[in-house]
Amino acid sequence: MATATARVFNFAAGPAVLPVPVLEEAQRDLVSMPGVGMSILEMSHRGKFFEGVLQQTEADIRKLAGVPDDYKVLFLPGGASLQFSMVPLNFLPRDGSADYIVTGAWSQKAVKEAKKVAGVKIAYTGEAANFNHVPAQGELKLDPNAAFVSFTSNETIHGVEFKYVPETGNAPLVCDTSSDMFSRPLDVSKHSLIYAGAQKNIGPSGVVLVIVKDEWLKRRVDDPKLPTMLNYAIHAENTSMYNTPPCFAIYIMGLVMKWLLSIGGLPGIHAINERKAARLYAEIDRTGYYRGHAQKDCRSLMNVTFRLPSEELEAKFAKEAKAAGLDGLKGHRSVGGMRASIYNAFPEEGVNALVQFMQEFEQKNG
Amino acid sequence: MATATARVFNFAAGPAVLPVPVLEEAQRDLVSMPGVGMSILEMSHRGKFFEGVLQQTEADIRKLAGVPDDYKVLFLPGGASLQFSMVPLNFLPRDGSADYIVTGAWSQKAVKEAKKVAGVKIAYTGEAANFNHVPAQGELKLDPNAAFVSFTSNETIHGVEFKYVPETGNAPLVCDTSSDMFSRPLDVSKHSLIYAGAQKNIGPSGVVLVIVKDEWLKRRVDDPKLPTMLNYAIHAENTSMYNTPPCFAIYIMGLVMKWLLSIGGLPGIHAINERKAARLYAEIDRTGYYRGHAQKDCRSLMNVTFRLPSEELEAKFAKEAKAAGLDGLKGHRSVGGMRASIYNAFPEEGVNALVQFMQEFEQKNG
Repeated sequence: MATATARVFNFAAGPAVLPVPVLEEAQRDLVSMPGVGMSILEMSHRGKFFEGVLQQTEADIRKLAGVPDDYKVLFLPGGASLQFSMVPLNFLPRDGSADYIVTGAWSQKAVKEAKKVAGVKIAYTGEAANFNHVPAQGELKLDPNAAFVSFTSNETIHGVEFKYVPETGNAPLVCDTSSDMFSRPLDVSKHSLIYAGAQKNIGPSGVVLVIVKDEWLKRRVDDPKLPTMLNYAIHAENTSMYNTPPCFAIYIMGLVMKWLLSIGGLPGIHAINERKAARLYAEIDRTGYYRGHAQKDCRSLMNVTFRLPSEELEAKFAKEAKAAGLDGLKGHRSVGGMRASIYNAFPEEGVNALVQFMQEFEQKNG
Repeated sequence: MATATARVFNFAAGPAVLPVPVLEEAQRDLVSMPGVGMSILEMSHRGKFFEGVLQQTEADIRKLAGVPDDYKVLFLPGGASLQFSMVPLNFLPRDGSADYIVTGAWSQKAVKEAKKVAGVKIAYTGEAANFNHVPAQGELKLDPNAAFVSFTSNETIHGVEFKYVPETGNAPLVCDTSSDMFSRPLDVSKHSLIYAGAQKNIGPSGVVLVIVKDEWLKRRVDDPKLPTMLNYAIHAENTSMYNTPPCFAIYIMGLVMKWLLSIGGLPGIHAINERKAARLYAEIDRTGYYRGHAQKDCRSLMNVTFRLPSEELEAKFAKEAKAAGLDGLKGHRSVGGMRASIYNAFPEEGVNALVQFMQEFEQKNG
């Protein structure tokens, strides 16, 4: 079992497991923050304490990912789903087009929203193979006149992950990194905009982290009809305080950033993530009883998707695993089988427990 | 001091004070929800527990406010500020116009966003009197062809509150009730859409409660370019789960609803709110040393705005009050002076403490 005795191993795809020290600190101070005399849930976002939380969280993000000074760090509402609209509304000229690399369900959703704004060109799609891989650089059909190129660094549902950052020439690069944000070192400078819904690797649901290059922000489409809340420039000018931000979600994100720094930052967590994923994929490959969905060269370190010999066995596996304290393993219906989401905060002993369960299940049902 | 010894009296305008029993229950279960084995912050929004939270919160809201069956109850991101755009984008024909009643800073912001969508007619504005009142029914200049009429039931900054629901004939009525939601009985059936950012009376920041009439939803503007996340119909079809909702904010809202039901529902809290406000306004009126900003017939039960004889005395008052454990009393710069926000969860002993402080301050500085 995990550190706190009453906790199960939570393999959910998101909202997902958080570090126990983060939960314990939040719990300790929830009724009354020491030195303030009220809960973080009750504090004015314009007050000194919350402003400190926001500034420290941003500073820790900058430190963790080496965010260059000429990028803004924003905390916005609406999830990655609203970013699917905000990116083209702010950066896609209404008579222009952008390139989208389609590697799974999330990039498909991004395309759907972008098409409402202007032209979209599909630089690659893995749909014919049910999104079991990401393209190599040479497979991308890039338009030299694209307003930007958008890709999804990790597809939560299909379990495929880019192991490189696409080269896009002069076209600005946009990355939805919701499900692998801060799971490994990140070269922010190769991107013009990065966004991540918090609820997988960096916090609870309710806030999206956006990192955007100043120079690109200046070149945004000036649409007088754009709702203020969808305007990155307004949020940047107001340091994410144009309106009342999702304060508690930002506070928890701040605690997660502190935790990441304490365990060695992005190189530290990457080593742990590689070890966890390697152990699980090794078990998948051991006998052929389990079959990984993703091609080996683009297997996600975060979402491990695999099948069993039959759907009956898959149902049995999910049910018995849950009874054994391994929760949330049922895969998404579009892929079938199992999905073990093993984000940053997922404990190594949980991976060991799953591997042992898989071996025992195979022995009994093989 | 309030119930928990380390807590101050929090007069902030929002995020604002929450009921201590709500905070204590959230604290108790924060690391691991009994029977689930994980934190509410980590749970899949598609899991049984969170679905139960969502359903129970909706059921309690329906019970509390007598929401008719032909209204949807939605939990959305982006605050009231995003509603300022969503309402016209969904309901204002691009060649039509809507009537807006302008009674303060928040209705002004709503107008600004609506103008980006189509025509806006100002049915009334209190700007010339620095928004120290709301109009009487007879003062409203309503357009019989308006797509809808929008008003703000309580203006947080100016401290004025409607004591009646405007009659709008055939035009659907939209209400921003962010700062007095569930502070008094509410006749939902007179409205086509009601919204409230949670962070004043019904929860923490990060979620907006929307109550919308089915029949109006069916008549919405069909704009194929509308971002999915801004489409009420999509959220309604998906029972607020089109994307990952702000789960924790909804959970806390659910606890606040339970608390409201436990103290007598809307009539119960209304009686308490009237008592608190009456005590404070009586002190304001006692000698003439303090001067209320709002006209007496539309004084807010939630945000009590008042001035002192000079700005120097106002600064002194705010500083000494804070030192005495009365926090967040400084008014908004557009009104000046003091603002005591005494929302549902604000304790009566906090009002008594403020009244006593006001009397002592007047004696020393009168």
